[in-house]
Amino acid sequence: MTVKERLAVMAGEVEVYLRERFGARMRERGVPENLLAAMEYSLLAGGKRLRPVLCLVFAELFDADRARVMPFAAGFEIIHTYSLIHDDLPAMDDDDLRRGRPSNHKVFGEAGAILAGDALLTEAFGCMGRVWPGVAAELVLPALAEAAKAAGAAGMVGGQVLDMDYTAREGVTLAELARMQALKTGALLTASCVCGAILAGAGEEGVARAREYGEAVGAAFQIVDDILDEIGDAATLGKPVGSDREQGKNTYPSMIGLDESRRLAEERVAAAIAAIEPYAGEAAEFLRDLARYIVVRVQ
Amino acid sequence: MTVKERLAVMAGEVEVYLRERFGARMRERGVPENLLAAMEYSLLAGGKRLRPVLCLVFAELFDADRARVMPFAAGFEIIHTYSLIHDDLPAMDDDDLRRGRPSNHKVFGEAGAILAGDALLTEAFGCMGRVWPGVAAELVLPALAEAAKAAGAAGMVGGQVLDMDYTAREGVTLAELARMQALKTGALLTASCVCGAILAGAGEEGVARAREYGEAVGAAFQIVDDILDEIGDAATLGKPVGSDREQGKNTYPSMIGLDESRRLAEERVAAAIAAIEPYAGEAAEFLRDLARYIVVRVQ
Repeated sequence: MTVKERLAVMAGEVEVYLRERFGARMRERGVPENLLAAMEYSLLAGGKRLRPVLCLVFAELFDADRARVMPFAAGFEIIHTYSLIHDDLPAMDDDDLRRGRPSNHKVFGEAGAILAGDALLTEAFGCMGRVWPGVAAELVLPALAEAAKAAGAAGMVGGQVLDMDYTAREGVTLAELARMQALKTGALLTASCVCGAILAGAGEEGVARAREYGEAVGAAFQIVDDILDEIGDAATLGKPVGSDREQGKNTYPSMIGLDESRRLAEERVAAAIAAIEPYAGEAAEFLRDLARYIVVRVQ
Repeated sequence: MTVKERLAVMAGEVEVYLRERFGARMRERGVPENLLAAMEYSLLAGGKRLRPVLCLVFAELFDADRARVMPFAAGFEIIHTYSLIHDDLPAMDDDDLRRGRPSNHKVFGEAGAILAGDALLTEAFGCMGRVWPGVAAELVLPALAEAAKAAGAAGMVGGQVLDMDYTAREGVTLAELARMQALKTGALLTASCVCGAILAGAGEEGVARAREYGEAVGAAFQIVDDILDEIGDAATLGKPVGSDREQGKNTYPSMIGLDESRRLAEERVAAAIAAIEPYAGEAAEFLRDLARYIVVRVQ
């Protein structure tokens, strides 16, 4: 299987969980229909499912059965989805399009979108905090603390606050941009890797290597996203090209140019591959291919 | 100690945790200052801290050391606070005042308030999901699942969606109003009681009784809130009298009158007291007094 094929297979497994297991639980509990519709509109809108896939593969890397880790892995996608819904709100980035479709508040209204996001964030922790057969509760709790930290005030939400502070501000440094992106998108990607390792019972070194890989891949991913905003086409991106620039956002290409941005992304990919150097086997190979695949999109 | 005094003492302990332990952790982690200011503006705005107090007292009732349960108990107050911030938003209830002060978005802007709420909700699960010395991880996980369910799409958020659907809608039945309020405010109050019992290792019967008490107290509390909106003064309430009616909200007094509302509240208080009938001791006495105290405010 190519990396793209394997990515699609695993994303498909996540999709099944979200569509069937998660959806069924919400229906059983009698969630109001309009709320569930708003949640699923964004949750089941496709996407690469990169965060849960990373969590599953890191669990595999340390010899865990990936089916057992699925509810936790899916939690990362649910958190990611809530963040997209809230980011698109008129009071925030005010984006009308997401993945080529009207964004959540365009369909369900502002209140509907705020509440759908709130519900998704809450239910993500519900998924993560369930008692699973075969994974020790002692492993789930530290993973949960890691996920909450990455998604919270010193992670993703903090990054979004910095992003808004920096937008259209003069004199943002490259270090500030890197820190903002590390929080806004890097932290959750990193936690996906780290939690996969923790849940599989990887030792301290394994968890540290998962963290290094996640940080490097997260940085590469964001630089590539910035590049695609400059050079990509709206169909691939699901949003208009140049929208970052129009909003006065600082990006890698706007600060250091396209060539240097590409070089930096490749450097981060190399660091990711180096981080998991000691490991062999199918999961390790896939993680290496995945890191390389990120930059292929902009070469 | 009177019930009011004991309530104040325990609320004070919660206050110390939120102000010192929680705040210190956020500062250590380097949360952006403007985000933390927005979070603390609402979190440290006072309030009865009823949810964490219920969690702590139910833990005590089943012989747990309440200091050990504090991070989990505080999580309920953090969730409650986020819900108030989001409920007040212009796209939702559009309230300018909360506890006698400008509501969060009036001070920090809409984006700031949305993100402060998101951060608080996330960090609440961070508090709840930490590994504590002396409480078995096997007890924390089911408590966490209970809290997430109560706060989520089939709990508090679902109740808020129903509340908006019902506002100004003709022909809402008393059963619909009761269900909406059971979700919007009852679920989290109930989970506070239930989780205290779970974390203390109470058996099935103990947890069931905690649930019964929580549901009855939650219902009484909400009916009393509706009554106070009609008859209270703005200083006690922290918001203008009659604001529910002005917004076209269905309330108990508007549907069944003040006297019948009072009778119903007293009936629910009696049910709460009956639920914990088998228990003796200081914690049990306090829970009985607390239930009675709720209706005293409107007698």
